[in-house]
Amino acid sequence: MTINTPRRLFAVLVACTAGLASLASQAGDSLPSWNDGASKRAITNFVVATTTPSDAGYVPPAERIAVFDNDGTLWAEQPVYFQLAFALDRVKALTPQHPEWKEKEPFASLLRGDLKAALAGGEHAILEILMASHAGLTTDDFEAIVRQWLATARHPKTGRLYTGMVYQPMLELLAYLRANGYKTFIVSGGGVEFLRVFAEEVYGIPPEQVVGSSIRAKYEVHNGKPLITRLAEIDFINDKAGKPIGIQKFIGRRPVLAFGNSDGDFEMLEWTTTHSGPSLGLLVRHDDATREWAYDRESGIGRLARGLDEGPKRGWITVSMKKDWQEVYP
Amino acid sequence: MTINTPRRLFAVLVACTAGLASLASQAGDSLPSWNDGASKRAITNFVVATTTPSDAGYVPPAERIAVFDNDGTLWAEQPVYFQLAFALDRVKALTPQHPEWKEKEPFASLLRGDLKAALAGGEHAILEILMASHAGLTTDDFEAIVRQWLATARHPKTGRLYTGMVYQPMLELLAYLRANGYKTFIVSGGGVEFLRVFAEEVYGIPPEQVVGSSIRAKYEVHNGKPLITRLAEIDFINDKAGKPIGIQKFIGRRPVLAFGNSDGDFEMLEWTTTHSGPSLGLLVRHDDATREWAYDRESGIGRLARGLDEGPKRGWITVSMKKDWQEVYP
Repeated sequence: MTINTPRRLFAVLVACTAGLASLASQAGDSLPSWNDGASKRAITNFVVATTTPSDAGYVPPAERIAVFDNDGTLWAEQPVYFQLAFALDRVKALTPQHPEWKEKEPFASLLRGDLKAALAGGEHAILEILMASHAGLTTDDFEAIVRQWLATARHPKTGRLYTGMVYQPMLELLAYLRANGYKTFIVSGGGVEFLRVFAEEVYGIPPEQVVGSSIRAKYEVHNGKPLITRLAEIDFINDKAGKPIGIQKFIGRRPVLAFGNSDGDFEMLEWTTTHSGPSLGLLVRHDDATREWAYDRESGIGRLARGLDEGPKRGWITVSMKKDWQEVYP
Repeated sequence: MTINTPRRLFAVLVACTAGLASLASQAGDSLPSWNDGASKRAITNFVVATTTPSDAGYVPPAERIAVFDNDGTLWAEQPVYFQLAFALDRVKALTPQHPEWKEKEPFASLLRGDLKAALAGGEHAILEILMASHAGLTTDDFEAIVRQWLATARHPKTGRLYTGMVYQPMLELLAYLRANGYKTFIVSGGGVEFLRVFAEEVYGIPPEQVVGSSIRAKYEVHNGKPLITRLAEIDFINDKAGKPIGIQKFIGRRPVLAFGNSDGDFEMLEWTTTHSGPSLGLLVRHDDATREWAYDRESGIGRLARGLDEGPKRGWITVSMKKDWQEVYP
């Protein structure tokens, strides 16, 4: 290739884009772990419509924003959010440095192995545990600790690594959307710095496309070396009505596709599907006690009630784990 | 094309990537508005090294993050930040609804046309003006107002639209970096929702790659229609040590290239260039009173003192507008 004008560059780009688009549209089974049925059809119809220039529902590539909740949507969340499992392990590891915890709740109950009593203090107790386990160290050190935990800790029920409990059908969906020019984002109530440690490797979602809850941080220079240290103060809670706020703040553009599983995702789906153009809202329904868990209205974690009642009226798709997914974990 | 296996897709991707990379590396003059010299050479050498797999300084595509300040780096900032000019125009437009402003500072001075007296109240006065002009309306309405202003307001000195005062050499640099697999971000002290209105069209930077200062917002549903309303409360100031914090919060990955122009960018360049891998820090020096402005140590806006003193010792490149740029505006 010896000529190099903007026109030539443009021609190469067009050729590449066309080649990729044709490959993508042929990808009849980009979703092999999804059973044929209404849910799969709704997804593929939407993707074909939004990526076909002649279609009334066409969406230009720059606007193809798809947002995914994480806990219960991209990976499992029972019996406790995996980040809480991390926090509990971290509290145990830190105990030698905190003799006072033996007398102090929620740590005392936690160290006796009584999780229920530890969490009886509600939000305040959870916050204490999160701050003790997530703050007071640099971003680099925190990342290393999370990475180490993810590489070794095992889920109490399945014995798998936690990253082995991501949902195979969702991995396929993320890849299928990206192959069709969608930019995929995580929009989670979980901590953004926790999620970023594995999101790229596991989901193919780079750090800059992860929106989550956060604690404040400070910038300091020690002996010429700058450090960012995590502080024991909440910065932002990316849950419920916080999700559209987080989307506006971090993405700055209204998504066209939103996928969640609990009432914590209600506003995210609402914000996405009341947009003037084409949109798709989806909810994973955990109805598979054999392969995963079955829970909805009464669950403390991943409660889904309003979404079940109002979702169908709003045209949202309820994805049944039991019926729609051929496989659950990879 | 009839076969469609992951391997085939991979082959197409590799062919496209190789084609693009070869085009990009041939792009001897992707920077026609930059005069030949040390600055241009430093940039092209860095880009070639970081994108050549056999080079010791090679950076994988996912890590090619380049961050740019906006005011004074991508567009002009004199005699006042353009967003402040917008705020002043907006205050004037809102005056009929606020008869009390005739007696109340900083508005009273502002309405008499005495900008100096209005800003004499310092940060507090600026904050009052910003909140009066930026809060209390929905994100959609705010966007429409900014868009309208950018389409009509003219700069007092050049008579150009404000978006006509972006720097041509920087537009070329942004495009050159992207052609080489870099993801370009704005990291500005300016308001993120103000910047996003024009960043995509003018700089080719999508909303999700704009990091800026922000005010809080709330999510509410009115008659089934969700709205995000901007509140008169500061959320985050993305300036000075706030810039690395903003980078960590929104991007979550340390940049390899940072370009600024004032001491407000010092920590952003420091954070970028003390990374263990290859990195490049650059500062625009406003030394061209004929074509633009000449200011540094003594300027209230865009003050550059520490960067001039310490930058060279840290290996940062000082880009002289006068000597390094053949053109200033498009």
